[in-house]
Amino acid sequence: MKLSEIASILKCELSVKDVEIKSMNTLKDANSSELTFVSNAKYVKDIKETQAGAIVVSASHAELVPESCTALVVENPYWSMAEISKYFAPLIEDDSLADAQIGEGSKISPKAEIAKGAIIGKNCTILAHVYVGAEAVIGDNTILYPSVSVYRDCKIGNDCIIHANSVIGSDGFGFATNNLGQHKKIYQNGNVVLEDDVEIGSNVSIDRAVFGSTMIKTGVRIDNLVQIGHNCEIGEYSVFVAQSGSAGSTKFGRNVVMGGQAATAGHLEIASFTTMAARSGVTKSIKESGGTFAGFPLMPHRTWLKLQGRIAKLLK
Amino acid sequence: MKLSEIASILKCELSVKDVEIKSMNTLKDANSSELTFVSNAKYVKDIKETQAGAIVVSASHAELVPESCTALVVENPYWSMAEISKYFAPLIEDDSLADAQIGEGSKISPKAEIAKGAIIGKNCTILAHVYVGAEAVIGDNTILYPSVSVYRDCKIGNDCIIHANSVIGSDGFGFATNNLGQHKKIYQNGNVVLEDDVEIGSNVSIDRAVFGSTMIKTGVRIDNLVQIGHNCEIGEYSVFVAQSGSAGSTKFGRNVVMGGQAATAGHLEIASFTTMAARSGVTKSIKESGGTFAGFPLMPHRTWLKLQGRIAKLLK
Amino acid sequence: MKLSEIASILKCELSVKDVEIKSMNTLKDANSSELTFVSNAKYVKDIKETQAGAIVVSASHAELVPESCTALVVENPYWSMAEISKYFAPLIEDDSLADAQIGEGSKISPKAEIAKGAIIGKNCTILAHVYVGAEAVIGDNTILYPSVSVYRDCKIGNDCIIHANSVIGSDGFGFATNNLGQHKKIYQNGNVVLEDDVEIGSNVSIDRAVFGSTMIKTGVRIDNLVQIGHNCEIGEYSVFVAQSGSAGSTKFGRNVVMGGQAATAGHLEIASFTTMAARSGVTKSIKESGGTFAGFPLMPHRTWLKLQGRIAKLLK
Repeated sequence: MKLSEIASILKCELSVKDVEIKSMNTLKDANSSELTFVSNAKYVKDIKETQAGAIVVSASHAELVPESCTALVVENPYWSMAEISKYFAPLIEDDSLADAQIGEGSKISPKAEIAKGAIIGKNCTILAHVYVGAEAVIGDNTILYPSVSVYRDCKIGNDCIIHANSVIGSDGFGFATNNLGQHKKIYQNGNVVLEDDVEIGSNVSIDRAVFGSTMIKTGVRIDNLVQIGHNCEIGEYSVFVAQSGSAGSTKFGRNVVMGGQAATAGHLEIASFTTMAARSGVTKSIKESGGTFAGFPLMPHRTWLKLQGRIAKLLK
Repeated sequence: MKLSEIASILKCELSVKDVEIKSMNTLKDANSSELTFVSNAKYVKDIKETQAGAIVVSASHAELVPESCTALVVENPYWSMAEISKYFAPLIEDDSLADAQIGEGSKISPKAEIAKGAIIGKNCTILAHVYVGAEAVIGDNTILYPSVSVYRDCKIGNDCIIHANSVIGSDGFGFATNNLGQHKKIYQNGNVVLEDDVEIGSNVSIDRAVFGSTMIKTGVRIDNLVQIGHNCEIGEYSVFVAQSGSAGSTKFGRNVVMGGQAATAGHLEIASFTTMAARSGVTKSIKESGGTFAGFPLMPHRTWLKLQGRIAKLLK
Repeated sequence: MKLSEIASILKCELSVKDVEIKSMNTLKDANSSELTFVSNAKYVKDIKETQAGAIVVSASHAELVPESCTALVVENPYWSMAEISKYFAPLIEDDSLADAQIGEGSKISPKAEIAKGAIIGKNCTILAHVYVGAEAVIGDNTILYPSVSVYRDCKIGNDCIIHANSVIGSDGFGFATNNLGQHKKIYQNGNVVLEDDVEIGSNVSIDRAVFGSTMIKTGVRIDNLVQIGHNCEIGEYSVFVAQSGSAGSTKFGRNVVMGGQAATAGHLEIASFTTMAARSGVTKSIKESGGTFAGFPLMPHRTWLKLQGRIAKLLK
């Protein structure tokens, strides 16, 4: 998409040479053919180091933009970013793509739908009513139970099992809100990647990234009815018990255990080998590995037990 | 259905002229061709003003029934209402209905099922394994991702997006219980209405109304794994974060935010622009708009922070 | 499967006559043609009474094994049991089974998938995109709404209703973990049994048993988005409100009520006629029937109300 078209959609002036913009990305990751944006005050300091070809900013930050990057000055950068995100969204399905490739030994139900451009590995079992979207890739020996939906561009590794009615790659919960309280969708143009030996229960939702990938690493075990927000990263062999969840962009180390109905806020980092008791509510990052926590607000499990003692006393 | 048949099913005497009863409705909304009931003491005072053609009541309330309305006197009105509700349930699918109508420019997967009597607007995208039930109506430009199920009679507006494996219009959780502890289903003969520009995540459940409609108004955003009970009304631009939910008949104003795993009891009213922090538990109505709340039992967010301070002290 | 093959897979010596092992089972239930295991210290005392044909044990417990039972001595019995469980898993689908049998008067959507070996009773309604697995049995007059998935070997009774996108029989969340933190799947070779007159909401997950059956007894009512772990037993007429759940192997008496988002830990017993308020967290068995509880940790509902009073005081 031409930068001049973007400027025209956003109704802002463009005083520099036109260039082709291939995609959108974060301030940190965008390259010279990508568009980025700043809406959160805490990232303003990073503007001057961006490698992006263009940036959507408010007037007050325009002068921080380096010379290599074209500033598109708008009133509400987040809203404008939402508006433009739609133009970078790929087609949901695309008839111009090549026929799906199915690996040797794979058994695909005639009642499954494998979209054009998808690639299925060897010795997979894909049951009725499964959907594998455009350009999705499924590894070898993977089992998709009935009514599993894998959205376009998602990648599932080898030796994975996904139970019935789980969804891999639905849109992350992203939208801008204007001062009338109206929302505008931020198209989620990233994907989900499951590495090898991952097992996912039934009725699980794993959202695709807004940019880049939501990552589920090797050996992860996810129980039923679990929510994984966009851009999360779940470390190797981590375990999510039923009805637990994480808001977006939280990074879990390896062998983290989330008990039943436990949940984490977004944009946190949880150290490896951390265990959260059932119904823990995590609102801050955990830096030290190997701890066991409980409660909401979260506290060391031992403290939580002490608190229960204090509460018992209160009741006397 | 003849009133005499209803009386006969309920084994109660009918001393008046027979009339045709077209449907069931609430005490407040029923008209002269409708049947209603009273089982909850708090509505007894409204009996004398009902416009209903007939009412299922216990003997102790029979004399409050106005002359225009026929009293069907039974031992357990709620149980009898459940028994009769079945007779007013429409067929799940109905081969006598007209063929589904599909608007210009809409792309319907051959692996989707559009039941007879359904109407699909223009430029919709309906992917594989979607189900659109009898007499359901889908507006223009709406996207239904794989394995979305829209039950009969439900209405989805224009420019809506519903993510994979979500269910619009499953039965509300309604049943009568007798003194042996057995349950009898109350058929849920209402529907769900989504207005325009609504986005629903994956694995969401929105139940149909027992009578009337469960309403999701313009611009609402619902994340994954959310529960909306029967007869709820979600106001414009309200936001439900993942794994939150509401029991039945609660009315939310506009721009209400329900944080992750937050939940409300049934039959409440939540004022516009109210924000509930993650995991709030709401058991009382909120009359004043614009507040921010947290905790279970619910309290102002500021009070909740103070409470955490007090708890920290307890632990010293 | 020959005992000698099992010994060879587990790399342990076999000094006795070879026998045919037909399946795996618990220490308590295994018979002379079954293999069992002990990994939990609390069951060590039961080893000497096992009727199993063979047992996977650590060296330290080998001498407790009775003469009628062959000890397979391994380093990590739970891990070895996981390894062997795979060999007893039936095929997901099996083309050698007889064609599905459909009872008189049943209406099956051509877009449903009824696997070979399945049996459907009379007057059932099975809508589009439903999956009924190998050797599953569905009773009479049962309704399966769109995209319901019933895994192989599960049994659904008469007069049941299962709402859209619910899953009956996905694998229980079972795996062994080694000292590198890696997981090995324990194949879930049991099933789920729903007795008669059970109604299940939408997007519900009920896991199959590892051995034996997960039981949902007559008249149970389960709302949307509920989790039932493997080997649970839900007593007659019990009620699970939306987003509630139970970890594995918990046994509920009759007419237990689990409020919205309430949850129980695994391996508990909950007495009949117990009521849990919304969001109760149950970590201990409840022996006396008829109580009402709330909170997490759980307490009598009256105590919980008192606690709220104490907390209000704290805030003054």
